[in-house]
Amino acid sequence: MKYIIIGAVAGGASTAARLRRLDEHAEIVIFEKGQYISYANCGLPYYIGNVIKDRNKLFVQTATSFAARFNVDVRVSTEVTAINPSVKTVSAINLLTGEEYTESYDKLVLSPGASPIRPALPGIQIEGIFTVRNVGDTDYIKGYVTESKPQKAVVIGAGFIGLEMAENLHELGLEVSVVEMGNQILAPVDLPIAAIAQKHLREKGIQLHLNTAVTGFEKEDDHLKVQLQDKAALDADLVILSIGVRPDTKLAENAGLKIGQAKGIWVNEYLQTSDPDIYAVGDAIEYANPISGQPTITFLAGPANKQGRICANNLAFGNNQKYNGSINTAIVKLFDLTVGAAGMAVKHLERNKIPHLTATIHGNSHAGYYPGAQLMTIQIAFSPENGQLLSAQVIGGEGVDKRLDVLSSVIKNKGTIYDLIEFEQAYAPPFSSAKDPVNMVGFVSENILLGGLKVIECSKLDSVEANAALIDVRTPTEFAGGTIEGAVNIPLDEIRNRLTEVPTDKPLHIFCQQGMRGYLAQRILVQSGFRNVTNLSGGYLLWKTYKDEMEQAEAEVL
Amino acid sequence: MKYIIIGAVAGGASTAARLRRLDEHAEIVIFEKGQYISYANCGLPYYIGNVIKDRNKLFVQTATSFAARFNVDVRVSTEVTAINPSVKTVSAINLLTGEEYTESYDKLVLSPGASPIRPALPGIQIEGIFTVRNVGDTDYIKGYVTESKPQKAVVIGAGFIGLEMAENLHELGLEVSVVEMGNQILAPVDLPIAAIAQKHLREKGIQLHLNTAVTGFEKEDDHLKVQLQDKAALDADLVILSIGVRPDTKLAENAGLKIGQAKGIWVNEYLQTSDPDIYAVGDAIEYANPISGQPTITFLAGPANKQGRICANNLAFGNNQKYNGSINTAIVKLFDLTVGAAGMAVKHLERNKIPHLTATIHGNSHAGYYPGAQLMTIQIAFSPENGQLLSAQVIGGEGVDKRLDVLSSVIKNKGTIYDLIEFEQAYAPPFSSAKDPVNMVGFVSENILLGGLKVIECSKLDSVEANAALIDVRTPTEFAGGTIEGAVNIPLDEIRNRLTEVPTDKPLHIFCQQGMRGYLAQRILVQSGFRNVTNLSGGYLLWKTYKDEMEQAEAEVL
Ligand SMILES: Cc1cc2nc3c(=O)[nH]c(=O)nc-3n(C[C@H](O)[C@H](O)[C@H](O)COP(=O)(O)OP(=O)(O)OC[C@H]3O[C@@H](n4cnc5c(N)ncnc54)[C@H](O)[C@@H]3O)c2cc1C
Ligand SMILES: Cc1cc2nc3c(=O)[nH]c(=O)nc-3n(C[C@H](O)[C@H](O)[C@H](O)COP(=O)(O)OP(=O)(O)OC[C@H]3O[C@@H](n4cnc5c(N)ncnc54)[C@H](O)[C@@H]3O)c2cc1C
Ligand SMILES: CC(C)(COP(=O)(O)OP(=O)(O)OC[C@H]1O[C@@H](n2cnc3c(N)ncnc32)[C@H](O)[C@@H]1OP(=O)(O)O)[C@@H](O)C(=O)NCCC(=O)NCCS
Ligand SMILES: CC(C)(COP(=O)(O)OP(=O)(O)OC[C@H]1O[C@@H](n2cnc3c(N)ncnc32)[C@H](O)[C@@H]1OP(=O)(O)O)[C@@H](O)C(=O)NCCC(=O)NCCS
Repeated sequence: MKYIIIGAVAGGASTAARLRRLDEHAEIVIFEKGQYISYANCGLPYYIGNVIKDRNKLFVQTATSFAARFNVDVRVSTEVTAINPSVKTVSAINLLTGEEYTESYDKLVLSPGASPIRPALPGIQIEGIFTVRNVGDTDYIKGYVTESKPQKAVVIGAGFIGLEMAENLHELGLEVSVVEMGNQILAPVDLPIAAIAQKHLREKGIQLHLNTAVTGFEKEDDHLKVQLQDKAALDADLVILSIGVRPDTKLAENAGLKIGQAKGIWVNEYLQTSDPDIYAVGDAIEYANPISGQPTITFLAGPANKQGRICANNLAFGNNQKYNGSINTAIVKLFDLTVGAAGMAVKHLERNKIPHLTATIHGNSHAGYYPGAQLMTIQIAFSPENGQLLSAQVIGGEGVDKRLDVLSSVIKNKGTIYDLIEFEQAYAPPFSSAKDPVNMVGFVSENILLGGLKVIECSKLDSVEANAALIDVRTPTEFAGGTIEGAVNIPLDEIRNRLTEVPTDKPLHIFCQQGMRGYLAQRILVQSGFRNVTNLSGGYLLWKTYKDEMEQAEAEVL
Repeated sequence: MKYIIIGAVAGGASTAARLRRLDEHAEIVIFEKGQYISYANCGLPYYIGNVIKDRNKLFVQTATSFAARFNVDVRVSTEVTAINPSVKTVSAINLLTGEEYTESYDKLVLSPGASPIRPALPGIQIEGIFTVRNVGDTDYIKGYVTESKPQKAVVIGAGFIGLEMAENLHELGLEVSVVEMGNQILAPVDLPIAAIAQKHLREKGIQLHLNTAVTGFEKEDDHLKVQLQDKAALDADLVILSIGVRPDTKLAENAGLKIGQAKGIWVNEYLQTSDPDIYAVGDAIEYANPISGQPTITFLAGPANKQGRICANNLAFGNNQKYNGSINTAIVKLFDLTVGAAGMAVKHLERNKIPHLTATIHGNSHAGYYPGAQLMTIQIAFSPENGQLLSAQVIGGEGVDKRLDVLSSVIKNKGTIYDLIEFEQAYAPPFSSAKDPVNMVGFVSENILLGGLKVIECSKLDSVEANAALIDVRTPTEFAGGTIEGAVNIPLDEIRNRLTEVPTDKPLHIFCQQGMRGYLAQRILVQSGFRNVTNLSGGYLLWKTYKDEMEQAEAEVL
């Protein structure tokens, strides 16, 4: 059996390695147009930022070591230029020698990845405007930074990679501005969560320009001008373009393979393309999203690696293992914060008309009485029918990745909020609390689902009925330190004795700092005859950050 | 409705709080024989060790604050001395005034917890021999440490609490010995994992005495002598007795409630005792272990808190929520290490004759190319029939709690090793790898389950066939640095060219440092015609630690 694999990084190299383990005697040829294989794409921003100091660390394997270990014919600097499915060959060119040739296969695997989008804006070709995808790009940026000693950087696009670049350039001492066309950073998360991250970035000295479109670039003296729609241009010595990637489907398209609705290479559940002898994995493919059922592309290394393993299994044993799709679990470190998401954001659930409820809590990374606990915020969405978990977003310091991983595992397994309630966290004071934040968001969700808790989202508070009453149930000191306009203060621990002060003729909106005391107040009020009582989800804490950021973003539109 | 709750800490206070939220108008009385309610038992060792500096932090609620918030009648320093189920009253005594009275209930909840075992050894009453269960004990120890300035401590019992005490006393500057009757520390984990922890404790300067029984205590001059069976006595200024706890069932027993096989208060799946008006939660109850089906008692705060919530639901709504039992997920910090477990240890699976396979891997806490990655070891056990996950044990530095939580969640939900394979970890370089250790242990397990990998446990290597050949597939440098006696060295990357050197007439045992290269070598050998090939599970790394610790423990027997 002779296998050809195109692309020798996350998806391709993983396929080749597993294939060799399953079949010691197969012939395996892997083509890579770049100079390097098996490199750590995900580490590139950190190498630029000098967090990873040794360039060699970026290479998990080299062509030589991989060939030695796996007895694979590794052809670097060799681009596959065409696939000829009818005769089962590929055409390749050695980019160093110019030599062109064809190579035959029994089975072919495509893992060509994706390419950064480079829009045809005026001036886009000016030196100093970079994308970050591979080692070549990285060496180029690193060299530029070392030699030209840029002072000001503009990052265009506030996705995961853009923000990693912003942080790393900032840590190198550059003045960094981030320009984003949307009204928030980090498109995969919802606005209240993004707002927390935005606030943190601003505090760290990153200049955020939301609701802002780049219209072009100009060279002025020794620096660049980044032109903005309706706004003054930004000066830059260095521009990072990270507005997204597009699956690399050219080869597949030219070979007549089916391209799907999301513009990725279409594959069936066995990762097989429309040609039964050709499989595909990684950033280039699309499959049905397990939550929405819609065609989706995932640009993540974990799924690419896992698909590689499944693909190899299906090649070696015949189609015997299904790929069940990715829930797009992703995470990013932003200075002292960590933010991540899994499943479908609430805005996407709304767009897809998928019924859902949401719950938001704040919780400590570990027991509050043990030193160093840090507050995190968790938002989940779940089905109003059966409590199935649809998404999770977590932001905070220590322990965010842990909660996200647990939530991701439950989403993946089609679990429910009851699994969060029953979840047995490993608890000792340095690690968790007797009720972990994961349990807590489960409790709150159950209360919402069963009607024991009625919540109002911070994004909806502005549009509440004009005659509603706002009650701040925090302490007088907290109230004095800032509250929501129009709120009256009745501290939770006094409410049972001050029920006569609560208006009986209006809808009531209760809030506290984080949400829990508001819930307790609501329980008392509802059981004391007040009917129309809602609790502000995530409390004053979330509302305040959200509100401030909305105002900031609005100011930027003007 | 009038509820009485006995015990006002983890289980009792949680029940009371939830009950009030569900029923604003019920009468709730809670009895606590101690001076304090709602305290952080789990923080006590860290308060003694000065990690938690402010004593007030130990109190999540006080009697006053709890009463104010939840409108609960909190009676501290009041012991319930009898329950009279026929007339539905309890007898109580105010320990400060001596006043005795009875109080009637409609429904009663028992959460009396457990008591430390204090065996009737000669000299056990001598001053300076402490148990650690509540705030009183803690104040007593803390006072003793501050005033008597002890130099030497002996901790008896190497369970979670004993070892937390050992660490905290060591951090205070005491010379600490730990005496343990068993042949390992941390009974809930298996020996190879315990061995790693033992090595670490020894390196930190804790003196471990395994296989060692304490026979009594004597006072000599100004210090204690801890007498040992067949060994020289140990000097101590302070002794911590932490050989386990016993459920507090006296009240229940005297009231005629059913006591179960494990000697806990018997409850049904709704946490109801044999008397339908009496419920019980926490350390005092027993229920069917979800893995073995056997009656089990769990001494953990998370389950106690969760049972409290379920119990309140069942009281308020009628039995509508089941408690599904605990998988005993537990964790402990030991200096720079973290070790934890969930589900049934392999030794207990063996004892219960539950069929199982095991897999052990080592993995990085996050991407190896990003600074600060720390190695952890994961051992799981799973069903040979369907891959259901039965237990997990994790030891290492950073990120151990995260992996254990994910594994715990899968065990709890009766998931399989395929859920580990599909698990979508939140991956960016500071948090994980493209293949997380959780995925990795899933892959390895699948290989074992499907026969692609045959392993031998480090505990079994000594008893292999006399004629077996041992092959070390690490590099010559690694081989030279120490190997297993009798092994020959054929490095993995040379093995395809040196097949003629591999004996054809013997069983082959392959090993490398961590297990992965051994697996690769095995795949090559098996597909080259060698039939009887096994790979050392966990590699030389695990074997060496295990072996060293076994020798050390044996030496201690002599
Ligand atoms: C800067 C950066 C940071 C990232 N950070 C993260 C992260 O933190 N977490 C995460 O999960 N993911 C991250 N990713 C995404 C992750 O790296 C990708 O999802 C993953 O590498 C996709 O694997 P792949 O095999 O599909 O494509 P790639 O890994 O990109 O490999 C495709 C390879 O195919 C080669 N190729 C393409 N066409 C041809 C051809 N015709 N002939 C020969 N060779 C060809 C390309 O040169 C390329 O090397 C990051 C990506 C980047 C760029
Ligand atoms: C030092 C220490 C460290 C621990 N560390 C951890 C950890 O890291 N993680 C973890 O999960 N668990 C830990 N635990 C265990 C955890 O604290 C218990 O599992 C949990 O507190 C059990 O809850 P409970 O309500 O059953 O009992 P308790 O919390 O012990 O409460 C029982 C209460 O009932 C009172 N009582 C008993 N009888 C009567 C009576 N007749 N009348 C009136 N009152 C009565 C007692 O005074 C006691 O205050 C630790 C325990 C200790 C002692
Ligand atoms: C380097 C690379 C080729 C490795 O592929 P790989 O060999 O499949 O992956 P790993 O090195 O992680 O090894 C995993 C294998 O070792 C096995 N293994 C791991 N630990 C083991 C142990 N202790 N005992 C036995 N087997 C073990 C696993 O079971 C798995 O084998 P399987 O797939 O046959 O079940 C590929 O992952 C790669 O190119 N990575 C870099 C590119 C990349 O991912 N970039 C994006 C992220 S930055
Ligand atoms: C202090 C104590 C009485 C608290 O009991 P509790 O009120 O049930 O628990 P918490 O304070 O954690 O609050 C949990 C409640 O707040 C709700 N909540 C939490 N965050 C919320 C938010 N943001 N919005 C709305 N509700 C929220 C939860 O849903 C839950 O209510 P529910 O059970 O009705 O669903 C009890 O846990 C205790 O005594 N603890 C200390 C003793 C102990 O556990 N020791 C051993 C460990 S060291």
